[in-house]
Amino acid sequence: MSEEKKIPYKIYLNENEIPKQWYNVRSDMKNKPAPLINPGTHEPMGFDDLRPVFCDELIKQELDNDTAFFDIPQEIQDFYKMYRPSPLVRAYCLEKALGTPAKIYYKFEGNNTSGSHKLNSAIAQAYYAKEQGLKGLTTETGAGQWGTALSMACAYLGLDLKVFMVKVSYEQKPFRREVMRTYGASVTPSPSMETEIGKKINAEHPGTTGSLGCAISEAVEVATTNPGYRYVLGSVLNQVLLHQSVIGLETKAALDKYGIVPDMIIGCAGGGSNLGGLISPFMGEKLRGEKDYRIIAVEPASCPSFTRGVYAYDFCDTGMVCPLAKMYTLGSNFIPSANHAGGLRYHGMSPILSQLYADGYMEAVSVEQTSVFEAAEQFARTEGILPAPESSHAIRVAIDEAMKCKETGEEKTIVFGLTGTGYFDLVAYQKYNDGEMTDFIPTDEDLKKSIATLPKV
Amino acid sequence: MSEEKKIPYKIYLNENEIPKQWYNVRSDMKNKPAPLINPGTHEPMGFDDLRPVFCDELIKQELDNDTAFFDIPQEIQDFYKMYRPSPLVRAYCLEKALGTPAKIYYKFEGNNTSGSHKLNSAIAQAYYAKEQGLKGLTTETGAGQWGTALSMACAYLGLDLKVFMVKVSYEQKPFRREVMRTYGASVTPSPSMETEIGKKINAEHPGTTGSLGCAISEAVEVATTNPGYRYVLGSVLNQVLLHQSVIGLETKAALDKYGIVPDMIIGCAGGGSNLGGLISPFMGEKLRGEKDYRIIAVEPASCPSFTRGVYAYDFCDTGMVCPLAKMYTLGSNFIPSANHAGGLRYHGMSPILSQLYADGYMEAVSVEQTSVFEAAEQFARTEGILPAPESSHAIRVAIDEAMKCKETGEEKTIVFGLTGTGYFDLVAYQKYNDGEMTDFIPTDEDLKKSIATLPKV
Repeated sequence: MSEEKKIPYKIYLNENEIPKQWYNVRSDMKNKPAPLINPGTHEPMGFDDLRPVFCDELIKQELDNDTAFFDIPQEIQDFYKMYRPSPLVRAYCLEKALGTPAKIYYKFEGNNTSGSHKLNSAIAQAYYAKEQGLKGLTTETGAGQWGTALSMACAYLGLDLKVFMVKVSYEQKPFRREVMRTYGASVTPSPSMETEIGKKINAEHPGTTGSLGCAISEAVEVATTNPGYRYVLGSVLNQVLLHQSVIGLETKAALDKYGIVPDMIIGCAGGGSNLGGLISPFMGEKLRGEKDYRIIAVEPASCPSFTRGVYAYDFCDTGMVCPLAKMYTLGSNFIPSANHAGGLRYHGMSPILSQLYADGYMEAVSVEQTSVFEAAEQFARTEGILPAPESSHAIRVAIDEAMKCKETGEEKTIVFGLTGTGYFDLVAYQKYNDGEMTDFIPTDEDLKKSIATLPKV
Repeated sequence: MSEEKKIPYKIYLNENEIPKQWYNVRSDMKNKPAPLINPGTHEPMGFDDLRPVFCDELIKQELDNDTAFFDIPQEIQDFYKMYRPSPLVRAYCLEKALGTPAKIYYKFEGNNTSGSHKLNSAIAQAYYAKEQGLKGLTTETGAGQWGTALSMACAYLGLDLKVFMVKVSYEQKPFRREVMRTYGASVTPSPSMETEIGKKINAEHPGTTGSLGCAISEAVEVATTNPGYRYVLGSVLNQVLLHQSVIGLETKAALDKYGIVPDMIIGCAGGGSNLGGLISPFMGEKLRGEKDYRIIAVEPASCPSFTRGVYAYDFCDTGMVCPLAKMYTLGSNFIPSANHAGGLRYHGMSPILSQLYADGYMEAVSVEQTSVFEAAEQFARTEGILPAPESSHAIRVAIDEAMKCKETGEEKTIVFGLTGTGYFDLVAYQKYNDGEMTDFIPTDEDLKKSIATLPKV
């Protein structure tokens, strides 16, 4: 107990302990993630194929499966200093409330205005665009965390930003929209009448409230038809997981300071950016055979790509303008039912995580949203932080594992990723507070149908 | 420059450097703040007079003008560890954007779910209520920061909480309401039909949207008519400034670490809780003649109690059920026009700060809200944090002072209090983004009228 007392509530690193390099977990993977392929020819996409859409330096990062460490440019390091290092928190109060012998830690990435970890990759992607001499960027956003993060990064670097926001979110989340506007971004509801694809979709589906897939298609169109613009994406891609490795590297550095070795590492998984970043250095040790950890991906039961999807080539977007990626997928035209964790409503999964899961290096569980909000409420009341619905998926499983320890008496060490805060998700909290939240689980029949539409590769 | 480089972006103290005592600035004041007096007899209120309304220990703190330091109980220290120490941030990016030789620092108190410094006193007040064996607390809230903070504190300690929320805020800020509910508080729009005074007001003013004064009266009625309940208040009182001294003590400890001596300290002032806490130890040095600092209170031009009010005994609430306090006031029935900084819309001012201002130890300036939001936007884009409208009053004056340094070439050191985040203030940001924000300044005639209604003491 006296040894325990030495571990503070929050383990902060010093500013000079912020990682100066990102770690590329692909370098330690024997089975590399499958390459992106051209939807027409089914040939792997090379540097030149991707140049019209993405920034040069980011394409290099995307395609590089071998380099273990990438230097973080000084300007990005300086930006990181504004909100990093993020704290690794010992959940003493939650442990006490649960009466568990487990030791619970969480890496809290919500301490910045974007409210999530998305900023780690947003500043990197904006930086390389600036370096390339570009005028601006385009992107899509659903729940709004990614759009907010990119708005902040572009404001900092003086880049223009055009965000296509899924129309239903644009209307239902006016506050997210206003944060982006405050940071100088232009925010357009999608489908819009500003792009060819937007006009086409509006004509074919009058009154549609849009989808992430449609917003991606519009953003890509604007990037590829306007000189000096490129498109950026906040998850799924290898480059994004590379940038997000800063989460895992800091987590490991903080644990190492106190000689703490986790038994399991838990993260929520939508496209995989947070989970991939958090587990990177731990997974590296596991891949190199140096250590063993349980690594658990948590996904919503309403959108269960790992636990009920197939591992196959699929479109990254519903508009089918993007390359094909090999990943666990429910089919690009799978429409997840109304789950309040917008950041987890994606039909596919990071190709890196998909390969690791296929190779047996990770586990996955799916959880239902009412039980997620139950965990969120318990966490808020004991640990003080109001968690994002996405993050609360990880909280749910961390609590479940801690309660198993209570039964067995095992003092396991649990680390989970608390990706963000829930200040813009209070419509969902209100539903939960009013007892009006329900669960949605797709039927086997639903999944069969959407998976049947996968492209033949 | 190399010496400068040693100062990190964020100066974090260690957990064991969180203050273990609060500092009572009254102990160093030659002219003590005037006592609360009974509105009927005009006699100073003693311990027994205040017992029906407030917790015993808090009354002792309220009345004690002499004890310099109060021990912070261990349980409060433990709670503080969940979100403190808060960072003192060097605003390198803002300085660069302004091109000023001034060195700007801000103490950021928004890194917790309540989104403001209010939690520092909320946990203290809830703790003493729990120690006294009470069942629960009542309070009022306008903008919602105080209600949120107290909800968090009561959830942590297992106390019941009843919040009367000004009806117009209850309806316009449903998200604030839901945060409080998530933490288990019951939230009632005021005026309600649950209290005698609420019924009376509803009968006399059918359809009224309420006021802070009315909500206070309802909360006091419930506290005094239900055994095991007491009323608590988030600002103005001496005890609140005592608890908030933790802000200033941490700020001073962080500055001392790097041998930094500020030239001026700036804070926004509504009831005075943040400003009073931030300046406490610096004011102590000034009062003892050890050091000199410029200390600047910033208030909205729409509610200018320091700059256009009178120093006199007045009611703390519009319902006139509370004791009289001697303070700078615009009259308890002054109704501030629509300023979006709800936390600064109070007719009076902390008696401690009022005495210090009367004695010439501080300055005060008033600023208009469009210029405040201009500063908020500039701050957000350079420093990343979306500031609360209240806090942005201090940002405005910090920028103004930094720009004066640019003209004169002086390398002054400016410290200001960044009390909170603006995630629940996006209606105001939207108005600003849309160019629809206007300024309101009360006329001399308006002020004359409301000041004329002061009680004769």
